[in-house]
Amino acid sequence: MKFAVIVIVNALVGLNLAYATDSKAPEAWHPSKWGANDTLGAVNEITSESILAAARLVKTGKRYSLGQVTSRETPAFGARTFALYAVSHGGIFDGSGTPYGSNKITANDDWALVYMGVGSQIDGLGHVGINHVYYNGNHISKFFHPGGLKSFGTDNIPPIVARGIVLDIVAFMKEHNPSQVMTVGGFEMLKEGTPINEPEIQGALALQNLELGKGNVILLHTGYMEMADIDSKRYKKSIPGISVGGALFLAGYDPIAVGADTFGTEVMPAERAGDFIPVHAELIPKRGIYILENIVTRELVEDKAWEFMFVLGQARMKGAVQMIINPVAIR
Amino acid sequence: MKFAVIVIVNALVGLNLAYATDSKAPEAWHPSKWGANDTLGAVNEITSESILAAARLVKTGKRYSLGQVTSRETPAFGARTFALYAVSHGGIFDGSGTPYGSNKITANDDWALVYMGVGSQIDGLGHVGINHVYYNGNHISKFFHPGGLKSFGTDNIPPIVARGIVLDIVAFMKEHNPSQVMTVGGFEMLKEGTPINEPEIQGALALQNLELGKGNVILLHTGYMEMADIDSKRYKKSIPGISVGGALFLAGYDPIAVGADTFGTEVMPAERAGDFIPVHAELIPKRGIYILENIVTRELVEDKAWEFMFVLGQARMKGAVQMIINPVAIR
Amino acid sequence: MKFAVIVIVNALVGLNLAYATDSKAPEAWHPSKWGANDTLGAVNEITSESILAAARLVKTGKRYSLGQVTSRETPAFGARTFALYAVSHGGIFDGSGTPYGSNKITANDDWALVYMGVGSQIDGLGHVGINHVYYNGNHISKFFHPGGLKSFGTDNIPPIVARGIVLDIVAFMKEHNPSQVMTVGGFEMLKEGTPINEPEIQGALALQNLELGKGNVILLHTGYMEMADIDSKRYKKSIPGISVGGALFLAGYDPIAVGADTFGTEVMPAERAGDFIPVHAELIPKRGIYILENIVTRELVEDKAWEFMFVLGQARMKGAVQMIINPVAIR
Amino acid sequence: MKFAVIVIVNALVGLNLAYATDSKAPEAWHPSKWGANDTLGAVNEITSESILAAARLVKTGKRYSLGQVTSRETPAFGARTFALYAVSHGGIFDGSGTPYGSNKITANDDWALVYMGVGSQIDGLGHVGINHVYYNGNHISKFFHPGGLKSFGTDNIPPIVARGIVLDIVAFMKEHNPSQVMTVGGFEMLKEGTPINEPEIQGALALQNLELGKGNVILLHTGYMEMADIDSKRYKKSIPGISVGGALFLAGYDPIAVGADTFGTEVMPAERAGDFIPVHAELIPKRGIYILENIVTRELVEDKAWEFMFVLGQARMKGAVQMIINPVAIR
Repeated sequence: MKFAVIVIVNALVGLNLAYATDSKAPEAWHPSKWGANDTLGAVNEITSESILAAARLVKTGKRYSLGQVTSRETPAFGARTFALYAVSHGGIFDGSGTPYGSNKITANDDWALVYMGVGSQIDGLGHVGINHVYYNGNHISKFFHPGGLKSFGTDNIPPIVARGIVLDIVAFMKEHNPSQVMTVGGFEMLKEGTPINEPEIQGALALQNLELGKGNVILLHTGYMEMADIDSKRYKKSIPGISVGGALFLAGYDPIAVGADTFGTEVMPAERAGDFIPVHAELIPKRGIYILENIVTRELVEDKAWEFMFVLGQARMKGAVQMIINPVAIR
Repeated sequence: MKFAVIVIVNALVGLNLAYATDSKAPEAWHPSKWGANDTLGAVNEITSESILAAARLVKTGKRYSLGQVTSRETPAFGARTFALYAVSHGGIFDGSGTPYGSNKITANDDWALVYMGVGSQIDGLGHVGINHVYYNGNHISKFFHPGGLKSFGTDNIPPIVARGIVLDIVAFMKEHNPSQVMTVGGFEMLKEGTPINEPEIQGALALQNLELGKGNVILLHTGYMEMADIDSKRYKKSIPGISVGGALFLAGYDPIAVGADTFGTEVMPAERAGDFIPVHAELIPKRGIYILENIVTRELVEDKAWEFMFVLGQARMKGAVQMIINPVAIR
Repeated sequence: MKFAVIVIVNALVGLNLAYATDSKAPEAWHPSKWGANDTLGAVNEITSESILAAARLVKTGKRYSLGQVTSRETPAFGARTFALYAVSHGGIFDGSGTPYGSNKITANDDWALVYMGVGSQIDGLGHVGINHVYYNGNHISKFFHPGGLKSFGTDNIPPIVARGIVLDIVAFMKEHNPSQVMTVGGFEMLKEGTPINEPEIQGALALQNLELGKGNVILLHTGYMEMADIDSKRYKKSIPGISVGGALFLAGYDPIAVGADTFGTEVMPAERAGDFIPVHAELIPKRGIYILENIVTRELVEDKAWEFMFVLGQARMKGAVQMIINPVAIR
Repeated sequence: MKFAVIVIVNALVGLNLAYATDSKAPEAWHPSKWGANDTLGAVNEITSESILAAARLVKTGKRYSLGQVTSRETPAFGARTFALYAVSHGGIFDGSGTPYGSNKITANDDWALVYMGVGSQIDGLGHVGINHVYYNGNHISKFFHPGGLKSFGTDNIPPIVARGIVLDIVAFMKEHNPSQVMTVGGFEMLKEGTPINEPEIQGALALQNLELGKGNVILLHTGYMEMADIDSKRYKKSIPGISVGGALFLAGYDPIAVGADTFGTEVMPAERAGDFIPVHAELIPKRGIYILENIVTRELVEDKAWEFMFVLGQARMKGAVQMIINPVAIR
């Protein structure tokens, strides 16, 4: 996620806080249910059967890029930048543009300086910890290395092939809490700071006639992605998103990953004053559930493509904490 | 591809040259069959039907990462480098390691300086041209920009979902031309400089009881990838791979992409003395067929996973010439 | 220099063109006067005597930074960027911020991705050529390498210790051609596109009671540097600066380097329609005279520090084309 | 400095520890003697008089580059890298190599990804702290920002113009403690781990007939720089250098900076078991004295150029922690 400069205040919307994240002793969250040595978390839920079931969701032959185009203009927090450069080798070797070989080859190359926390991304299990303790109770000092993480690198994550679903929270809110929906630049979206809790998720499921399954990739459509282009400063200040209550509800279904169409996926600022990205803390270190950010959900929603085969093969850069991704939805 | 420092000499193996690449006037290769304004090439072959057919290849629920792990040690040509760095934010904001928020969040970040020509990669249609003319007759001056290509950026390529097949050229050669096979470090592989022409492809198809289809992604297993770890200097000097004859044969089946388990996919040096990467020239600018490089084929071959659902969603970096990828095979 | 997007039109100011740069055959400009194998150019003019004379100019004990502060906000052409990042190691090794050693060391580090064509810079002799031919008749194919130039790297330039002078062209113009002077943001400066030819140089010398010497570093004060902060787009469009006539006049005095307080040092667009950076062409490849850009001259002018000891030790990055610098003036 | 992976053990050489660094309460070291708000430290010692005196040291007209050439091969700690790339624009704009303008300009550019802790460098006052407290009592949280330090950036350091001296510790050791000197690859040098304390400094001063002055830049010649080329692994493991006792002795003369011809300047491992870079801690946070590393001293020593005018203008990158430098010695 991008650590936006968000003033940590109580969320403005007046919903009750129905969770207590800290009631258990901190040790309670490890070892993980996949064993004390596991480093992969929820991708362990993927089985041959779940892959076969996912493939059976392909019924129309349509596919979607769920990754957004990333460029120098993509809003990114603080010091983070993204820059890609093309280099024309012209004639490849001599710097003069003279084509090379008897077949007169010319060519271009490219390189990029990229923070992996820009654009569509997967947060690996080494991204967020609680008081320097990460997934499965691993202290940072056990795996951190400035040349790339010694474990939890996103290069270790196997291909995620799963049932994907998208929940249109905007449509639910329009019916049941319309004051939380706004239209900006022609796009309907949740207002910033709007939390998504269990009732909103249950409501959207009912409206879409969908059921949560085990081992799914669950995407939430807030409509807020377009704000990045319309007003990038406003976008970075506060976002709608899943709250701790909603996250704990989803976690009950053992998802592989939870994603949304914002840079943080979770509501920011957090519902409870003083908390910082508590949904990340609940999902990543405590439960090994991956978070996907800046996922393009609008096209799925427009097509009412509520469920689909979700396929993600992230570039395997050794020791990476996060990775810029472009998951594919197929239905 | 990586432009290895390869002395351009006649290939050492004594096969006849049965093709003539330059017999047509250069203009003959454009406009493309998808129209004069097309910038996407062979991905236009993907249809709803071909996607549905690809999904039906999923029969066992097993999936494969076709991308290799890329690191500082990955052999790369000349000036190219790859470097990924992890940054521990500790307490995210203040530089002292003090956890942040009442919930004591700590976090890590990462960034990389990456040449897209390192590791598993897709060559976009702006990568290779003939005498400064690229796919569909576009002169470099029309689309080159140092901040990213103005067209042919790999961010424009839609998800590639297709029937994938892998041809075990090593197995065929062992039977019909065993002198071209060697075992290094325990791995069977084609000798460097071994060209793959139509007979070898036909032979492998027969041996595997496979048929080429239209709109496939065709991968060739040479076994040579392991040489990168065993002797990276030897790996960069010469590689086995598809020759122009083989490429033209495959092109007759309108593939989306042709790939192999080496940095160049095509045989290097080229069969005809003086040519430089002629297969790239035949496939990319002349036919809009994508080339995939450094694709991990060994696991597929070990499983005799001859055909599979191939899914590629490459990270969408605006204006990129190539892209580091991790395609997913599912069967 | 930064290659600004400058429409190449005739300069707007109505001065006559009194030079003919192309009257000699192109071969006439090499070998250089320092021999056919020389790669250093005008720094060959520095002698023990000239260094001793430069040191004698130190009379008040005041020193000046002639380099500007470079940051992400520094205007840079097209794809060029500048980004510096600080990394807090906290406790150096373990990522948690725990101080290291019994003496509790903490530390920070930094790295930068820098185009050397941003901010104050020296143009090396490998920067600009004429039709792929560079200083001393060297074709680009002889010395270019993407991992750094094989010759002409700025790391080879010995320390430049010389008499420096600054010419206050603004003051001269105010007296003799006041329509070419404007005040923007409280700063007096030449108007964009104003050429500096021999009369302006002679005039400034007379006004300042200065004489040109052999082997000097000659700086021109146009006052235009402040435009970079005031209106960076206007700054990049057109600048005042030395014209070919002025450059040829200065070249008669065998300067080590010619500099000014703009990104290009020379007037842009060029006086003669169709020319592109002709002063660079006259000084660098033809004469081996270095060009300095974005040099901070205002403080020198305010102090009437017309002559001074000039000392430049540029960071020695192997094979660099240009280098970001901070020369020191001492008087 | 480069944080080499040095096992922190007692130094092998049997010298007594004659200092006690921690006897004072930690608060005792701030505010600094230049006031509680000072951020520049020992460069405050530079005066008009000291600059005039430095200029008077120029007696022969000879100058020296004190910075080493930095390249990809320069040994650097852990994750740090240095990479410079040249880009041939050929015809500058269109990617084809066609010269630009009626005067047929061609050009090259360059960029680098550089850790400032590679090669010859100045450590700024934001580089090293004690338990997160830096020069003048500033806590890291007051000035750290991942986009560049908010204070203590090396861009703020004014030009350092001072009397420079070099102490030939190798020559002194050869006479008084020859077992600490070795010859490797034809170069005489101190053995790794050899500490330089007050007796060695006093001895070298006497041998060279030199006196320490106030406000000097003091360089120590250990001869060990050549080890970087001869055996870079050995170079990074342990180095000779100044010890806390020597540093405190020098500090009594209020130097601007202390430097040496190794990556750490101080002896590593430290004399006292468990300490990590204690000389850095004594000089930088506690006293505002700058440390210079990887300074080329051999040529000075060969010429017996014991004192000289020292001039350093480091590139002014905003918020930099350290900076790659090339100081100039003139005598």
